[in-house]
Amino acid sequence: MSLRYLTAKLAQQIDDELINEAGAFSIDQLMELAGLAIAQALARVYNKDEYPNVLVCCGPGNQGGDGLVAARHLAMFGYNPVIFMPKGFKDVYNFERLKTQCDNMNIKMIPPSDDTSLLQDSLSSAEVILDTISGLSPKLIQAPFNSALPLLANSGLHIVSVDVPFGWDVEEGNVEGVGLEPDVLVSLIAPKRGMRSFRGRHFVAGRFIPKSLEEKFELNLPEYPDSDQIVELAMEEEAHR
Amino acid sequence: MSLRYLTAKLAQQIDDELINEAGAFSIDQLMELAGLAIAQALARVYNKDEYPNVLVCCGPGNQGGDGLVAARHLAMFGYNPVIFMPKGFKDVYNFERLKTQCDNMNIKMIPPSDDTSLLQDSLSSAEVILDTISGLSPKLIQAPFNSALPLLANSGLHIVSVDVPFGWDVEEGNVEGVGLEPDVLVSLIAPKRGMRSFRGRHFVAGRFIPKSLEEKFELNLPEYPDSDQIVELAMEEEAHR
Repeated sequence: MSLRYLTAKLAQQIDDELINEAGAFSIDQLMELAGLAIAQALARVYNKDEYPNVLVCCGPGNQGGDGLVAARHLAMFGYNPVIFMPKGFKDVYNFERLKTQCDNMNIKMIPPSDDTSLLQDSLSSAEVILDTISGLSPKLIQAPFNSALPLLANSGLHIVSVDVPFGWDVEEGNVEGVGLEPDVLVSLIAPKRGMRSFRGRHFVAGRFIPKSLEEKFELNLPEYPDSDQIVELAMEEEAHR
Repeated sequence: MSLRYLTAKLAQQIDDELINEAGAFSIDQLMELAGLAIAQALARVYNKDEYPNVLVCCGPGNQGGDGLVAARHLAMFGYNPVIFMPKGFKDVYNFERLKTQCDNMNIKMIPPSDDTSLLQDSLSSAEVILDTISGLSPKLIQAPFNSALPLLANSGLHIVSVDVPFGWDVEEGNVEGVGLEPDVLVSLIAPKRGMRSFRGRHFVAGRFIPKSLEEKFELNLPEYPDSDQIVELAMEEEAHR
């Protein structure tokens, strides 16, 4: 049985089941494990001595929260992350605490501004972009993100995207051709359908989904090694998509 | 500068600072990271093929919660954990959710009983005991734990203790001579003073303490390798106590 690539609807349904009464997880638990795994996947590919400066780009939804957690863990690992979160995170209850935790690690956050010069400055001193902008939200290519997209896409930096690269459609992929072209993809729980055309290094993370849910949704996840929180997809798994 | 061994008071103060407004961590975040790290330390020493059956002994405080999280991650890693939690966990707000998460992994919990025969049965089919009973609480050698202590101590099983082995004093160690004799110790954040006499394999976990707090309390923590959540103390560090 080959790994299942999820529709947007199914991905949302699995997220809901994890946090409802049956799954019983809090957002804090899932976000902490997801953010840690994202940081570990980045560290697996880009070591901190050659690639110390990471620009962490955070959308306004829960995936932006995953990015804040990942930034904190990257700082713990010895990286120098900078956070770009132009739309803030007002709707998510734990933003202020996650932000304070980043402040306590002396992580710089680019202040929201219509002027992209601060973003350009940060790009010029970064080696890697961590893209936690889109999540499952389809319509993020609007202000203030629309002006950032070409800057990120044309930066020439290494890009690690989570779930759905910025500018891609969850199910159709990079159909408009304007999306980021990541080197590394981290799929939380399982890859989304639009990622079938992705050809870089692909990690699955989210070693918290109970076996019963994995079976119910026929995810056919790859086996995580040892006590790792990430697993890299092998080429033969890719070939079966 | 050598690693600091904490008094009970200082350990409690650091815990408080992590969750107060300055640290801003939720119990859910810290418990998830602690439980994951505990499970990873156990897995580092006792692989799941030779030592699949782990009896996870949980006290009634937050450390019991760490034990429940560790049990869930051990099940994710492929172990077969069984939970012994005779006093329940009523006082901690997230117990029911943590318990449901264990149920969803089909983890068996020994029902509370004055009769120790169920505990004895579980001991006879286990290879490793994970001892998350005491935490910083000094007076746990009372019912229902008093009848369990000799059974655990005389089981001949491998023992992994967290922070303070069951029966030890936080600052004075195994002064009464009745405490467990663990093979492996996992110290959360930093070791406690009573652990200076411990001579087995010793891991530090808790890679979430901000540098500012580490410096404020002069912890002189060892350097965690790569993106690991645990670090094993080397013999030379032990010698400097």
